[in-house]
Amino acid sequence: MRSELPPISPSERLLCGPGPSNVDPAALEAMQKPMLGHLDPELHEILLDVVDMLRRVYRAQGGLVLPLQATGTSGMEAGLANLVEPGETVIVGSSGYFGTRIAEIARRCGAEVVEVSADWGEHVPNERLLAALDDHPDTRLLAIVHGETSTGCEHPLETLGAAMRGLDTLLMADCVTTLGGVEVDFDGWGIDYAYSCTQKCLGAPPGMSPVAASDRALDRIRTRRAPVPFSMDLLLLQDYWVERPATYHHTAPILHIYALHEVLRRTLDEGLKRRWARHTEAGTYFQQLVSCAGFELLAEPAHQLAPLTAVRVPDGVDGKAVQRQLLAEGIEVGGGLGPDAPAIWRVGLMGPNARTETADRVFESLAAAVDSQAVAVAV
Amino acid sequence: MRSELPPISPSERLLCGPGPSNVDPAALEAMQKPMLGHLDPELHEILLDVVDMLRRVYRAQGGLVLPLQATGTSGMEAGLANLVEPGETVIVGSSGYFGTRIAEIARRCGAEVVEVSADWGEHVPNERLLAALDDHPDTRLLAIVHGETSTGCEHPLETLGAAMRGLDTLLMADCVTTLGGVEVDFDGWGIDYAYSCTQKCLGAPPGMSPVAASDRALDRIRTRRAPVPFSMDLLLLQDYWVERPATYHHTAPILHIYALHEVLRRTLDEGLKRRWARHTEAGTYFQQLVSCAGFELLAEPAHQLAPLTAVRVPDGVDGKAVQRQLLAEGIEVGGGLGPDAPAIWRVGLMGPNARTETADRVFESLAAAVDSQAVAVAV
Repeated sequence: MRSELPPISPSERLLCGPGPSNVDPAALEAMQKPMLGHLDPELHEILLDVVDMLRRVYRAQGGLVLPLQATGTSGMEAGLANLVEPGETVIVGSSGYFGTRIAEIARRCGAEVVEVSADWGEHVPNERLLAALDDHPDTRLLAIVHGETSTGCEHPLETLGAAMRGLDTLLMADCVTTLGGVEVDFDGWGIDYAYSCTQKCLGAPPGMSPVAASDRALDRIRTRRAPVPFSMDLLLLQDYWVERPATYHHTAPILHIYALHEVLRRTLDEGLKRRWARHTEAGTYFQQLVSCAGFELLAEPAHQLAPLTAVRVPDGVDGKAVQRQLLAEGIEVGGGLGPDAPAIWRVGLMGPNARTETADRVFESLAAAVDSQAVAVAV
Repeated sequence: MRSELPPISPSERLLCGPGPSNVDPAALEAMQKPMLGHLDPELHEILLDVVDMLRRVYRAQGGLVLPLQATGTSGMEAGLANLVEPGETVIVGSSGYFGTRIAEIARRCGAEVVEVSADWGEHVPNERLLAALDDHPDTRLLAIVHGETSTGCEHPLETLGAAMRGLDTLLMADCVTTLGGVEVDFDGWGIDYAYSCTQKCLGAPPGMSPVAASDRALDRIRTRRAPVPFSMDLLLLQDYWVERPATYHHTAPILHIYALHEVLRRTLDEGLKRRWARHTEAGTYFQQLVSCAGFELLAEPAHQLAPLTAVRVPDGVDGKAVQRQLLAEGIEVGGGLGPDAPAIWRVGLMGPNARTETADRVFESLAAAVDSQAVAVAV
């Protein structure tokens, strides 16, 4: 009945795929600190500091901001499950895997989904989203992916928010690959619900989904009729995370909260603008390297996301074999996501990996792996 | 814009409340190992080992076993959301906070809920559950809490399972406070869905919910009509966790998986029976100490749970003040949970804390705190 297993001994990895990225060593250190109980007054102070720092990173002063114990996808689902009732219309801008996922989850919530699509790598022009809104003026919620993790395309979210100002339709944004690495201005851009993750530009391990909801989003939740899944009920979560005395909801993932506290602290100490600039510098540098070497990028150049770059696999090259070769060297890059994906590699330079030195290392290994494969074919 | 916050410096705690308990140091060590990507072949091996070990701990050979990235409550909700469709009847045995929660979540899932209740601290006799089943023969699912975390009462689950054998009604069991500390025999007892957590008897940090579903439970899910929340969809999670090549679903909480791997390994190496015996020894020892000192226990003696003991706060004693005094000494014990709770302390001796030495320490501090309060009142 013994396990017959040794302790794990995972290999060292430079994680430059679409996420997770490598964890900030200070976050790992924080996770070794003494674990408090989830209702300990000391933990309450830490929770409030996490909420306060998250507000500053999202730039969201009102409403509700907290990290769900959830994946990024659960953060997406929590937004739809709280804000949409069966039979209501949801418009989804979709030009990649995660836009399609929003549409699927909205359908599971019973919504009438209007999908406004574009090809992978393109963005869905705001004009088309606004035209769909004109056609469906009673739309409850319009959802868009700020940084499409499957393509490396960034949506012009600020101008969409500005165009929707004054409308009753709520604006939901997927900030999974942007928060902490690309400018996000929740209040300034008029976003009503945003969700992200901890394991990409923030540099913490995977395990939580920081979300933000506007005051009017909370008002809508308070007046909804259909029930919300208990685990995702934002009003109950507010009573647990923010209000005191706390109303028990679940046992928070305490060590992850320590890690999140530390990376938020470091993000603010670095400065949001400097952190975005660091991601921009590393990403554009990598994009120039691969472009100059003759590789093609998937995303439209004017909407290329900095933290994540999708590089087309050249004709005749086995993209998966290249990934395996890089992994054997300790470097992870991603492939295409899902059956609709074109042949691409996805390279993320996020969190502690958003450095030109890291870009150099990934590029050199990628180029060498492609070359060695070409040689192998030629031989 | 700087955080203006120092790194966290949480106090040392002996966590002897209803959970989380202290983390096995070996699990913390595992969390410092190099983080793999969630689709790395090396991680796949670790995932499969976790599933294999979880099967042995649940004693569940068929069906689906995996740890959800979820709280215990989400594990509860995942079961109801997958196994129950709107309009179906669910019988819930309820004599504490978590039985009531099952009923609430089942209602949110659209179920017709038949609650069979008993007072807090008692168990719901199986005869009454079976009588409710006779009254509602089309019942889709009967749910019971194996170890009621709010009262320290253990349900006779084995005999319930035996009595339900041959019926179409599925049996769901809350094993949050029992798995790894009290005998659970998923296959042998005929359970169809069970959920637990990682932060109690298993000794890992909070962050995941190990669940098990029987083959017939999976069959029911495959033929259901109403959609399941995407994050909780057990069939999609199976494709991600177990099947290969994996179909992407979410980014697994990799460091928690490392921790879970380590505590499962240690649980099996200790031996399930020895681990249960250790929890029994520590729990009954503590119960004798407090009983001999004149305290009353909340749970029926014949159904007292070993890992968790609810001690009635004596008349005239301020239970919350005693908790605060213990916390000032670095010892956490719990209070009553929710507005319906009687005046109790809840003392957990779980995971690495299931030791008679720990029982001694908690008892001495508790007794001293009560005495000092009595003295203060007398003065």
